[in-house]
Amino acid sequence: MNLQTERTRVKRGNKRATYDRDRINAILDSVHFCHVGYLRDGMPFVTPTLQWRDGDYVYWHGSSASSTIRGGRGLPVCVTVAAMDGLVLARSAFNHSVNYRAVMLLGEAEAVVDPDAKAEALKTMIEVMFPGRWETLRPMTATEIKATGVLRLKITEASCKIRQGGPIDEEEDYALPIWAGEIPLQTRLAAPIPDPRNLPDVEAPAHIADIVLGKSAT
Amino acid sequence: MNLQTERTRVKRGNKRATYDRDRINAILDSVHFCHVGYLRDGMPFVTPTLQWRDGDYVYWHGSSASSTIRGGRGLPVCVTVAAMDGLVLARSAFNHSVNYRAVMLLGEAEAVVDPDAKAEALKTMIEVMFPGRWETLRPMTATEIKATGVLRLKITEASCKIRQGGPIDEEEDYALPIWAGEIPLQTRLAAPIPDPRNLPDVEAPAHIADIVLGKSAT
Repeated sequence: MNLQTERTRVKRGNKRATYDRDRINAILDSVHFCHVGYLRDGMPFVTPTLQWRDGDYVYWHGSSASSTIRGGRGLPVCVTVAAMDGLVLARSAFNHSVNYRAVMLLGEAEAVVDPDAKAEALKTMIEVMFPGRWETLRPMTATEIKATGVLRLKITEASCKIRQGGPIDEEEDYALPIWAGEIPLQTRLAAPIPDPRNLPDVEAPAHIADIVLGKSAT
Repeated sequence: MNLQTERTRVKRGNKRATYDRDRINAILDSVHFCHVGYLRDGMPFVTPTLQWRDGDYVYWHGSSASSTIRGGRGLPVCVTVAAMDGLVLARSAFNHSVNYRAVMLLGEAEAVVDPDAKAEALKTMIEVMFPGRWETLRPMTATEIKATGVLRLKITEASCKIRQGGPIDEEEDYALPIWAGEIPLQTRLAAPIPDPRNLPDVEAPAHIADIVLGKSAT
């Protein structure tokens, strides 16, 4: 499945570009921190939030009254999902780079309006981000569902750029006595800090160990 | 110095908002991975890149021909600089959250056109991101400077949101036997991987140890 359109065709650095749905899904499913771009009064706004994928859609949420939610509903949006994986130090300033994985999705955001569909989407969010946690939680209330806005974007128009590996220098620069290389960036989850108000007999549940949200893929 | 305007006034979660220039600078100087939002044919586009601050400006760069550079020059942009610092697990799905630091800057991007000014900006980029490295590199060429586009945005209109600490639950939920807490996210630089084409007698320079780009603040 090829998601390239003229708008998403990568013009620069197109050796790094792919439009393959499986590679795009892999990034969407491992990098949940994302940036949603939308328009307000002719200005571009970019809001960081979390996205989760369910089939052919990416979802994000916020307060029903938030500008990210109001600014996206039924309107053109760009959802960019990007992670920096390392620094690339070359022999010239020009060839320094970073390793990264980035997906850009374009389209019109749809609001999830039906309360049951919204509740289902929010349950999926918790299950995707904190597997096993949903059933341990106090159930959502109708008021909470009402106060939450959920938007989604169908994955139809996308681009994806990935850079991996070490520096690529000008051929003549390899003769220079300059150290070049790659420094990987690794993100990990530190030890959980229990809420001081946890009840005395409540221990950290097993599902805490299964959380990968935010961690590096490797 | 207060950088709030009606466009950047944080409407939701405004307890987490600040417009203080020192706090904004601290984020701009520790989180270089950023997302630039711009318009093209009425669509918002969001491109990940690196930003560096020099005084009252944030700078970013790219190929002179790239859409991020062409799409920003003299036009309204939004530069969002955000890092996710941890996961916040509450007793209800609704009160789950993430800890983060985020700055949003609005304005019109200026192109740095003069070759000397551009060269100076690119030198500053290397010095900010890889302190001590500049003087070890093969000097930039006029062709490289020409091929590089540098944009900057004056820091005049900004908002900043920071969330720290553990969950905040509904008062009645604290009686529930549900584990709640915070899981910090830490990003670190792994051991450098030397380029296989480094000359045999070239060792990793001392400045490698001073690189903080991408690392967690703590």
